[in-house]
Amino acid sequence: MKKFAVLVAGGSGTRMNTELPKQFLSVNEKPVLYYSIKSFLEAFDDIHIILVLPQDYVGLGSEIVSSYFANKNILITVGGSSRFHSVKNGLNKVEGDSVVFVHDAVRCLVSSDLIVRCYYQAFELGSAIPAINSKDSIRIVEDGVNRTVNRSDIRLIQTPQVFKSDILLKAYELPYQDTFTDEASVVEHSGHKVELIEGEINNIKITFPIDIVIAEKLLS
Amino acid sequence: MKKFAVLVAGGSGTRMNTELPKQFLSVNEKPVLYYSIKSFLEAFDDIHIILVLPQDYVGLGSEIVSSYFANKNILITVGGSSRFHSVKNGLNKVEGDSVVFVHDAVRCLVSSDLIVRCYYQAFELGSAIPAINSKDSIRIVEDGVNRTVNRSDIRLIQTPQVFKSDILLKAYELPYQDTFTDEASVVEHSGHKVELIEGEINNIKITFPIDIVIAEKLLS
Repeated sequence: MKKFAVLVAGGSGTRMNTELPKQFLSVNEKPVLYYSIKSFLEAFDDIHIILVLPQDYVGLGSEIVSSYFANKNILITVGGSSRFHSVKNGLNKVEGDSVVFVHDAVRCLVSSDLIVRCYYQAFELGSAIPAINSKDSIRIVEDGVNRTVNRSDIRLIQTPQVFKSDILLKAYELPYQDTFTDEASVVEHSGHKVELIEGEINNIKITFPIDIVIAEKLLS
Repeated sequence: MKKFAVLVAGGSGTRMNTELPKQFLSVNEKPVLYYSIKSFLEAFDDIHIILVLPQDYVGLGSEIVSSYFANKNILITVGGSSRFHSVKNGLNKVEGDSVVFVHDAVRCLVSSDLIVRCYYQAFELGSAIPAINSKDSIRIVEDGVNRTVNRSDIRLIQTPQVFKSDILLKAYELPYQDTFTDEASVVEHSGHKVELIEGEINNIKITFPIDIVIAEKLLS
């Protein structure tokens, strides 16, 4: 089946206290984005990558692609005003009956193994949403009151979030809502339940400066 | 008001793939435990520290105390079969009307600032449970079905969990239950609601080998 990976890198990186959005920061002398692309190409050589970038960084993105991945199937498109809109722009490039990965480009430590596992589950069950358990106890706040919840009932969600194209494209026809924080929430809202898959401890999101250090260590 | 800090270090460290429990592993050439003790003493010079250690490591713990904290108020006691029982053993050493901190000794990056903030809130409101937001989307699994929850309603819980002694000691008279995963859950079960306080991103729990690397970086 055809495979598309929408790599979302629309963020402006304000939490990093850097000028450069975090998807372009260097990890062991290569940009964060490089590692994310590489993992997908290692998982599936025939995958089509759709890179969603902020308007002002399309040039830099193109340079990275031509430097490291010259002859690969990589398209660049421009992000929107929210994650939902960015993903939707990326999905416009998806064609035919396929499996579609949507991935935070700043999760640059995703393994090819996880990508492959997600593919086969989504192929079979319609979706694959990587999830891990929390190391911390969890409390839930409702109506201003907090209470404990069973830690094993809570799953921390990662990406890639992977779906059969018919399910995902149909869901993205919905009008935007604030509650659409990830692809799973959109698909769920469209009436499909989503299927979890075991994620990876190391599949961290580069959010704070310390995460760059962690990424360098994990990659070396 | 008198202050007691029960530092719980009962773990066997199996997730670290090490022989030595993680509270004794080296971070920048000093044991994890050293940093936890140091933060409490820096916050309050007059605090009484109660170290709860596995039976086989009482000797090693005593050595650390006498090497680094020779003239401080530090008692060592032996852990129990669960976190609840370990904490309960520690609480046996608490005396008089006081504020009691219960802290995972493996959260060695806790700041003195957080400890001080927790003290004043617990003094005033009865409890202070540090909590942070999740970077990841969250799903909750109920009856085998997973659904999205509003990320901002979920708090990841840290330690120290801090209480007025009357509230905490009374709660620990309850018979043990499997659902007692932290002190807040015990106190809540005793009929008191608990008060959250903003935790710290860097207040991580040394759980996996990578966490040692992170801790070294954050401490340097």
